[in-house]
Amino acid sequence: MTDCVFCGIVSGVSPAHVVYSDDDVIAFLDLSPITRGHTLVVPRKHSSGLADLDPEIGGKMFGAGQRIAGAMRSSAIGADGVNLAMNDGRAASQTVFHSHLHVVPRHAGDKLTFAKGFLTRRAGDLESTAAVLRSALESQS
Amino acid sequence: MTDCVFCGIVSGVSPAHVVYSDDDVIAFLDLSPITRGHTLVVPRKHSSGLADLDPEIGGKMFGAGQRIAGAMRSSAIGADGVNLAMNDGRAASQTVFHSHLHVVPRHAGDKLTFAKGFLTRRAGDLESTAAVLRSALESQS
Repeated sequence: MTDCVFCGIVSGVSPAHVVYSDDDVIAFLDLSPITRGHTLVVPRKHSSGLADLDPEIGGKMFGAGQRIAGAMRSSAIGADGVNLAMNDGRAASQTVFHSHLHVVPRHAGDKLTFAKGFLTRRAGDLESTAAVLRSALESQS
Repeated sequence: MTDCVFCGIVSGVSPAHVVYSDDDVIAFLDLSPITRGHTLVVPRKHSSGLADLDPEIGGKMFGAGQRIAGAMRSSAIGADGVNLAMNDGRAASQTVFHSHLHVVPRHAGDKLTFAKGFLTRRAGDLESTAAVLRSALESQS
């Protein structure tokens, strides 16, 4: 699995803006966010998709996504809503073949911005965004 | 919660094309599917969104979605990929305020059909589609 970019992040070899981490999952900012704060939750143990993902770990990914969604609403990210999404398979727009759950903050009336972000996906200041989410997640627990 | 359409389905008062059910969750076809087989997984106990959803039940919703995704690939639905999605809040396109996970079968090269289905969302023959998924789920276990 040395070629897997997300395994590289899990092992600490590759840099990432980590916002949350526990024994089973790690969550970091998407480098090409659809909206500011767009985060990916990945299992530490490699699996390519739903078919080889331990359901228990899948549930933990969902739980982490749920916590991160709360942080997106309570923090300066100021989300009014959140999309959780897992794209399983190339036909479903999966591009990195290490299972991951997208957590995308949404704002009232942002459909046009969202559509634009979907097409352009530019980074912005990831470090300050990660700091905001990390701080909100720490104050949850 | 008598006004909640999904609580009506859970209690058996409202009809639905159920494809899967256990002690915690129930899954049935979306009445306005984006693609054939589009299924919703909902918790039996009412919660409006991620903020009031028991994380353990959220994990079980994800696990059911994972099983249903497998059935969409192995059955005559013939999915090449699957999107799992939870829209939390009106800003994120949530329209029914009983938590639900969308499970949407995808086919290679269906982006245009998918976009069209997203706009039109017509029903088709739900009963035969439900029968196909139920049968595939039963043969999994």
